[in-house]
Amino acid sequence: MSLLPALADDALGPRARAVFDDIRATRGTDYVNHFWRVLANDPPTLERVWGSVKEVMAPGALDPLVKELVYIAVSATNNCEYCLHTHTAAARAKGMTGAQFRELMAVVALANQTNRLANGYRIDVDERYRSPLA
Amino acid sequence: MSLLPALADDALGPRARAVFDDIRATRGTDYVNHFWRVLANDPPTLERVWGSVKEVMAPGALDPLVKELVYIAVSATNNCEYCLHTHTAAARAKGMTGAQFRELMAVVALANQTNRLANGYRIDVDERYRSPLA
Amino acid sequence: MSLLPALADDALGPRARAVFDDIRATRGTDYVNHFWRVLANDPPTLERVWGSVKEVMAPGALDPLVKELVYIAVSATNNCEYCLHTHTAAARAKGMTGAQFRELMAVVALANQTNRLANGYRIDVDERYRSPLA
Amino acid sequence: MSLLPALADDALGPRARAVFDDIRATRGTDYVNHFWRVLANDPPTLERVWGSVKEVMAPGALDPLVKELVYIAVSATNNCEYCLHTHTAAARAKGMTGAQFRELMAVVALANQTNRLANGYRIDVDERYRSPLA
Amino acid sequence: MSLLPALADDALGPRARAVFDDIRATRGTDYVNHFWRVLANDPPTLERVWGSVKEVMAPGALDPLVKELVYIAVSATNNCEYCLHTHTAAARAKGMTGAQFRELMAVVALANQTNRLANGYRIDVDERYRSPLA
Amino acid sequence: MSLLPALADDALGPRARAVFDDIRATRGTDYVNHFWRVLANDPPTLERVWGSVKEVMAPGALDPLVKELVYIAVSATNNCEYCLHTHTAAARAKGMTGAQFRELMAVVALANQTNRLANGYRIDVDERYRSPLA
Repeated sequence: MSLLPALADDALGPRARAVFDDIRATRGTDYVNHFWRVLANDPPTLERVWGSVKEVMAPGALDPLVKELVYIAVSATNNCEYCLHTHTAAARAKGMTGAQFRELMAVVALANQTNRLANGYRIDVDERYRSPLA
Repeated sequence: MSLLPALADDALGPRARAVFDDIRATRGTDYVNHFWRVLANDPPTLERVWGSVKEVMAPGALDPLVKELVYIAVSATNNCEYCLHTHTAAARAKGMTGAQFRELMAVVALANQTNRLANGYRIDVDERYRSPLA
Repeated sequence: MSLLPALADDALGPRARAVFDDIRATRGTDYVNHFWRVLANDPPTLERVWGSVKEVMAPGALDPLVKELVYIAVSATNNCEYCLHTHTAAARAKGMTGAQFRELMAVVALANQTNRLANGYRIDVDERYRSPLA
Repeated sequence: MSLLPALADDALGPRARAVFDDIRATRGTDYVNHFWRVLANDPPTLERVWGSVKEVMAPGALDPLVKELVYIAVSATNNCEYCLHTHTAAARAKGMTGAQFRELMAVVALANQTNRLANGYRIDVDERYRSPLA
Repeated sequence: MSLLPALADDALGPRARAVFDDIRATRGTDYVNHFWRVLANDPPTLERVWGSVKEVMAPGALDPLVKELVYIAVSATNNCEYCLHTHTAAARAKGMTGAQFRELMAVVALANQTNRLANGYRIDVDERYRSPLA
Repeated sequence: MSLLPALADDALGPRARAVFDDIRATRGTDYVNHFWRVLANDPPTLERVWGSVKEVMAPGALDPLVKELVYIAVSATNNCEYCLHTHTAAARAKGMTGAQFRELMAVVALANQTNRLANGYRIDVDERYRSPLA
């Protein structure tokens, strides 16, 4: 059971209600998931986090499906059960195929393995990879 | 300084040499980076890890650039300095633009934030997101 | 189900019983929670960990409520379900308000975000922040 | 060396410059640290993250020093070198004493220990600690 | 519920079936656990990961029980519930005593504590411990 | 540079000096490494952590070398540079061979990989692995 309750629509104040309206309009669905209903206990955080999600996950230089795949990768690495379920659903809704999902998990698992080899052996960065991208 | 030395070519036995030959042929470059030179101290691990990287990172349902982006996302989450430098270089070589890199980092940072909100508040997974993908 | 059983009072040997007596006396309650009942399977660890908790969490330069807030912050970052439930209860018993809890979670989430921006971009520490505190 | 350059003031566009002006006004200092100078390569992220930091770290139900202590706790848990140096300096500027810093580190270390005992033994949450705070 | 179904034997294609045959032969039991049944949705990953587990966990310079203890240590640190249950069972089957398990958990907890003290205080590596092992 | 200075012997008060005497006597060497010299700024923590290390790392149901291997495994997983260097040295002093070290790193890397597959796919624990050890 979550540490704060998932608020029903009729328990929202005006500030949270405005965010929920925007979530519904942006996503084109009436369903608002538990994450936002729990954050609704803290309207400034609800506004700020929703604003960040809306801005960061919008189409840009990376397409929205790639962003969802990255979200899943981070959530699997951090072991966030909630985020894995919801972002897997979101990725699917954006067209992720089963084959893409399975390859994604294979890459995430591999990277977690080689991260520990590089960190564990304290491997020095090659001179040629040190310079900034800019 | 790494815990095991990065082996020069003339310090390799036949098994490690064969892997290095394959790395060079697969990547089309003579340069073999420190990661493989340190793993060369352990030829079975060198073979196994290179075999996994070659297989997992090959084009498939996800394109190779997306796989590099996922690698960077995991490495930033785990704080793997070596992997961040080398996979950023690899992603660039596969066409990652500066704008893509910056958006990637924004998604990774956001996911690390919302992962802690979901885990910290112990938010229950919505019933509709529980069922398997298959 | 935990990997070792939570021991009932009548299953304790003298060493674990003495620790339980001290837990009860220190906390002014008869209730001993599962954490200690599982550690009771390993009396030296029970003694050592209880001794550490008792010493570290006592009033000092930081007040006990601040220490509980820090405990929650670490537990949310590490995704420790058990610790989140018990230390949230402990913080509440020490006077944590709902508003404080919500702000705490916002800070924890933000820090997890900026930690990955700093680590992911490999940002160099400014010279002026390098020198020791002492 | 960071993956993107720390931008000097004369390399900023108008959007980043406006954020830097606000950082300087809010903090009452001309110094803008590397974190913001690297984020300045990505003006929307600079704006969004600075906006979040300004809002979340402002005085509220928790005082600003407690928020800095929580930031240090998260950064030590995640091993963020940059954040440890800068938030330790920030906490000091807000009045953190040496004794407070040492106690903080002791609590962080203890929580990381007991988090693994609880997670490793898979200890079940006591019924009485399961109910939400609200 | 897992994100992909645990496949029954009659749902396997020839490639997954061959891996299951090898798991059964190697382990001397008919039981194939969920981990492999979920990976069976992705036959190349099933093959690759089983191949790695079979090679890495075989007797070598470290005996198989020590390898299981290391697996538990990593799984407790990362909070992998599945791995904790299965590798604890595997370690037991290889002779781990209750006393060994309890000591293992004490070492894991202690290392997680001192890791944060060393990382949090940014303690410099002593010159004498810097040189490689080789 | 560490956040607190590594104290020289002549900067110690009587409480820290007594701990250093015990470290020297227990280890049979005059050398006291930076970890303890930094903790010496906080005598109660120095005492408590040294007491824990001395007790937990002593010979018991697990031999001291196995305990060092576990320490390295946790430190590689958490990316603790300091701990990797010092505990690798300690393991070597207790007889760890190069082959053992390389196998250890292979197990750690593998476990980090499979931990993410199990967590990422949210694989359900098999009924037969759920029951406690006791």
